[in-house]
Amino acid sequence: MDRYEKSLEAHRKWKGKIETALKAPLTNREELGLAYTPGVARACEVIRDHPQEVWELTGRGNLVAVISDGSAVLGLGDIGAEASLPVMEGKCALFKKFGGVNAVPVVIHSQDPEVIIETIKNISGSFGGINLEDISAPRCVEIERRLIEELDIPVFHDDQHGTAIVVAAALINAQKLVRKPFSSMKAVLSGAGAAGSSILRMLQILGIKDIYAFDSHGILRRDKADQYTSVKAEMASMSNPDSLELSLEEALVGADIFIGVSVPRRVTKKEISSMSKDAIVFALANPEPEIHYQEAIEAGA
Amino acid sequence: MDRYEKSLEAHRKWKGKIETALKAPLTNREELGLAYTPGVARACEVIRDHPQEVWELTGRGNLVAVISDGSAVLGLGDIGAEASLPVMEGKCALFKKFGGVNAVPVVIHSQDPEVIIETIKNISGSFGGINLEDISAPRCVEIERRLIEELDIPVFHDDQHGTAIVVAAALINAQKLVRKPFSSMKAVLSGAGAAGSSILRMLQILGIKDIYAFDSHGILRRDKADQYTSVKAEMASMSNPDSLELSLEEALVGADIFIGVSVPRRVTKKEISSMSKDAIVFALANPEPEIHYQEAIEAGA
Repeated sequence: MDRYEKSLEAHRKWKGKIETALKAPLTNREELGLAYTPGVARACEVIRDHPQEVWELTGRGNLVAVISDGSAVLGLGDIGAEASLPVMEGKCALFKKFGGVNAVPVVIHSQDPEVIIETIKNISGSFGGINLEDISAPRCVEIERRLIEELDIPVFHDDQHGTAIVVAAALINAQKLVRKPFSSMKAVLSGAGAAGSSILRMLQILGIKDIYAFDSHGILRRDKADQYTSVKAEMASMSNPDSLELSLEEALVGADIFIGVSVPRRVTKKEISSMSKDAIVFALANPEPEIHYQEAIEAGA
Repeated sequence: MDRYEKSLEAHRKWKGKIETALKAPLTNREELGLAYTPGVARACEVIRDHPQEVWELTGRGNLVAVISDGSAVLGLGDIGAEASLPVMEGKCALFKKFGGVNAVPVVIHSQDPEVIIETIKNISGSFGGINLEDISAPRCVEIERRLIEELDIPVFHDDQHGTAIVVAAALINAQKLVRKPFSSMKAVLSGAGAAGSSILRMLQILGIKDIYAFDSHGILRRDKADQYTSVKAEMASMSNPDSLELSLEEALVGADIFIGVSVPRRVTKKEISSMSKDAIVFALANPEPEIHYQEAIEAGA
């Protein structure tokens, strides 16, 4: 039995990877009266009169909603709200296990950004933070930016910023090993989705100037910005300053960094070999990378 | 320190009466791969292809959303979404403690029935059932009926049906003690809100025909139905068949049952004394009843 079938069997056994647990004891009438009616009325009144007290008197401050519309789930794509629940539950389990943070899955039956934004705004009072998950680009970028503007709690889009933060951390570490300044490095980015857009901004923040970004149609060029979605137009404006028409193969010649958040087997050993000495290769397509570790190493990465 | 201050202190200590807990172990890389990527993809695919499997492969089947707009919380009234959270958390704790059911609080930042209905529909795919809580009448009735029609999961409005079910059960028990047939009993109901409307329907189902219902303005009369909200008009159509103009005091003379879901101290000992022998008195206004237990007993209830 492979790990996929093992996982399916485990899911059948668990029937949910998280559950609720009590922090308040409810073992007698006295304790019931403290946690629920009538005593609870006092906590309600205090929050009504001093809204900030909600952070002290409820679990809101340690509760994250893991929210998806099921449109871009793992490598599976648009599988719908309910089919994304096993992933959202898994993310909630990670929040608890590794962060001590309570999290609940909330899947939304709509892929209309306005509906998603309104729904999240309507329920946001229940949560201390919003973790957007597996929402397809470019909608995810608009949804996240609007929510950051319009809500007074933190909003994080995992696929954009989670990935970008890890890539940036790994780049900072890799730079210490290869001892080249970021300002002199040439970077090639394959993938112009949610992760790609945030990674590109991180590359800029790190001080990398010579960046070439590719989507499935080829290199992004700022002189073609009017043909792009808003996200790709923004990516074009931050890369390829001379609007060169290069293939991925051509761009990789002499490059110092390759970052792949695109599709399996996007680059060859030969292309990696054409990169500069001590090339940094992050092939992150999930679950099958742009090039396998062993091949990249053999090619000189 | 009274129980209200004790409760407030307990709420400060708990910072949330429920939390999430893990059902899936995440103690090593292998287990991570079963609960999350890559293994979880298989559970997602199975649900995508066989939607009913969501009930087997996730916690949805044992997860209730406890939803309020904060408009009619306990005896406190319209205190807003966040201030209702301590009650919603308390209800979630009760679900777990006494039913083994996982529940999460969801408060909604709108009191517009259409917005509430749409929001709940949008997130309903995350839950196995919806428990509406502390939403003011008559909106709660419309919201509940529409959701029952439009969702494929159970929808329950606690204040309506929770109360009505308990009252009906208690009436069936009381009838065994007083040995009168329901069909010959006269019932007086004080309170025409969420609970009152559902209790009235339960009284009818039990076979009680002679029913008089009162709101804060007096007795409900079917000939005045056009002046009422839809809920009160429906209540009028199920009670007071001759459109009598009676005061509560007059209606109670010779009555067999008094049910109060209205306001503190609504009935007097003298009024209870005027009821028939073996009068059944359920004074349920919360937290202060229509008449206190001891007084009702002294009056012959």
